[in-house]
Amino acid sequence: MVALGSHKTIAGGVTAALGFLASGVPAGLKKDGKLDLALIYSEEPASAAGAYTTNIVQAAPLELTRSRVAEGKAQAIIINAGNANACTGEKGLPDAREMARRAGELLNITEDYVLVASTGVIGVPLPVEKITSATPAATASLSKENHAAASQAIMTTDLVPKEYAVQLIIKDQIITIGGMAKGSGMIHPNMATMLSFITTDAAIDSETLQRALKQVVDLSFNMITVDGDTSTNDMVLVLANGLAGNEQIKADTEEYGLFCKGLLEVCTALAKMIARDGEGATKLIEVNVTGAPSQRDAAMAARSVTGSNLFKAAVFGRDANWGRILCALGYSGAKFDPTRPDIFIGDVQVARDGGAVEFDEDRAAALLAQDPVQIFVDLKSGDFSATAWGCDLTYDYVRINGSYRT
Amino acid sequence: MVALGSHKTIAGGVTAALGFLASGVPAGLKKDGKLDLALIYSEEPASAAGAYTTNIVQAAPLELTRSRVAEGKAQAIIINAGNANACTGEKGLPDAREMARRAGELLNITEDYVLVASTGVIGVPLPVEKITSATPAATASLSKENHAAASQAIMTTDLVPKEYAVQLIIKDQIITIGGMAKGSGMIHPNMATMLSFITTDAAIDSETLQRALKQVVDLSFNMITVDGDTSTNDMVLVLANGLAGNEQIKADTEEYGLFCKGLLEVCTALAKMIARDGEGATKLIEVNVTGAPSQRDAAMAARSVTGSNLFKAAVFGRDANWGRILCALGYSGAKFDPTRPDIFIGDVQVARDGGAVEFDEDRAAALLAQDPVQIFVDLKSGDFSATAWGCDLTYDYVRINGSYRT
Repeated sequence: MVALGSHKTIAGGVTAALGFLASGVPAGLKKDGKLDLALIYSEEPASAAGAYTTNIVQAAPLELTRSRVAEGKAQAIIINAGNANACTGEKGLPDAREMARRAGELLNITEDYVLVASTGVIGVPLPVEKITSATPAATASLSKENHAAASQAIMTTDLVPKEYAVQLIIKDQIITIGGMAKGSGMIHPNMATMLSFITTDAAIDSETLQRALKQVVDLSFNMITVDGDTSTNDMVLVLANGLAGNEQIKADTEEYGLFCKGLLEVCTALAKMIARDGEGATKLIEVNVTGAPSQRDAAMAARSVTGSNLFKAAVFGRDANWGRILCALGYSGAKFDPTRPDIFIGDVQVARDGGAVEFDEDRAAALLAQDPVQIFVDLKSGDFSATAWGCDLTYDYVRINGSYRT
Repeated sequence: MVALGSHKTIAGGVTAALGFLASGVPAGLKKDGKLDLALIYSEEPASAAGAYTTNIVQAAPLELTRSRVAEGKAQAIIINAGNANACTGEKGLPDAREMARRAGELLNITEDYVLVASTGVIGVPLPVEKITSATPAATASLSKENHAAASQAIMTTDLVPKEYAVQLIIKDQIITIGGMAKGSGMIHPNMATMLSFITTDAAIDSETLQRALKQVVDLSFNMITVDGDTSTNDMVLVLANGLAGNEQIKADTEEYGLFCKGLLEVCTALAKMIARDGEGATKLIEVNVTGAPSQRDAAMAARSVTGSNLFKAAVFGRDANWGRILCALGYSGAKFDPTRPDIFIGDVQVARDGGAVEFDEDRAAALLAQDPVQIFVDLKSGDFSATAWGCDLTYDYVRINGSYRT
């Protein structure tokens, strides 16, 4: 088990680590000249790792990127928002490849080192010429400062850009891990649930990096849900270029543990930002489950509560309807004795041993009005725990998704 | 496979069959003196069968009823709305038993022949004395006519009562099957998704009846979803009192097939009424999947589409966003080749071979404005098919569930 450590949080997002540059430019895929094309570039070829959607309908850029990440090295990531290049038939893969080819040509690196991600509407052919036309502007504006522009360019229905970076010391060497993410709808546990790009100057081989990412994603991005929909395009990519000059991090060492903690901090912070920015959400919901008979049971239980439409609507309405929490635990698939669970909203106990207790409704309602809302569940059926994050279900979720394409 | 037959639809709901009486009275569990206590009575002991929620948190009345149905015979069902008697601790089971005891006493039948169901808020102790006080009125008003009152008394957030009955001929004998149901939120496939009570005058033993019910429930009640939440209280009960005078129906005979068709027609009609009356819904959505490699894949695919919040919100907004349909198929768990599916909204083809086709957006939007909305998916990956029903996701779903208890 990897636990969250405390590291120095710094600014800089996806370019906080040594040797990374980024940019964000308008390519005309979004309306009104908004930024919609992002580029991330490493001055040196980097170890690459990825985690991908479990949806069997997978977008063309995901297919391309997965095969390239499997080779272990990458040096750039080009990302467009506004069109997912998913379900676009035979034209999808050539279009994704063309995005990479153009970026590689302008960056003067091999095309195989360029990864591609897309997000936006499904089933509309990618206007790839708009992207290739804007790629020179994206390469020309690569800089340390433009991490912010990059984080804006990958947004779709996101209300806020999402960036986070930390510094940690591994064997007297400063290592930086930073990243950015997008996502606010079609977010659900089961791999990677949105787009996120993480960069680090740590020296670590791609196999070890892949292992660290898998471990961390299960505790962060796979523990958030907005609406139960798992997208065709979601991925988390990590590039590690080694410019920090540390001794190569080997699996199962103390250094590996420290690195994982840093990576987990970045991924958890970004995952929570995504859940908080869930379409139409007014607040982040954090569900902590303890006392589960296994790690898997703990995770299933916590995610089931954050995924319940009924519970999410009750939180929106500040209704301390704990029965819906118990109900969601019950159909989660997690094993536990239903006559045992204690449930708390913040510090107010609302259920004991799976049944009602007297509680201060006004105080519970006040806690449900806060952001974040914290729910604690003790299943009293074992020693494992997990935390999941979600958001409330609001009128605005319906409004946003009733008219996404218009 | 049981297919839907065409039978004579008749009035009378849960008392349409010979020898069944019903009533609905106010017991003071709902506000404003609304009907909230229903009673169903068979003049003769009847074969009983049941299907129950898969939630591991199960309400006390469900526990009691399950054990009594397992004995094979029952003669009455007492049902209250307004309080689910779920998560009510050690008081739950005695309260459920007391409901049955009082009804049995007044009906002058053994208490073990009385089944109990409850629906409403979870985690609040059942005010059982209100129910026992109203039980004399319920028994006194038992009649053929009061099927309508009974169907109203079991409603919670339902907007309309739900009744259906058919007559069919089995070996020159008229057999009647009728029923009522309630449910509009916390509805999701995985048995039994709501309350439904079916009565028939057919002669059939309880084991064969149980088998017929299981088969039929999988194609009807288990194919509807409103919000993905599976309740603690849901059940479908069938009583068959044999008063039609037919020769006992044996499994796997032609007569059994006819009986199953009739039962399926009643269950499907009630299931669709529940989906149509989904909390806040403005329309019924019917998703027909063909070309699946197995029955299970077909059902998973169809249910996944009806369960997608994103798709449900798109239907509400009349947005022909077929990418969300394909996406939901992709994460359904069903096996299919993602480059094959054809998708139609009504008669408008919106996707071919998993990709975009040109289509008339205005006409598609007009079809999405109709009730029901019909979606046809051909996975082109096999020979199996399934139909699932759901409803759109609207502002009112959020409103209703943001303030259920208040």
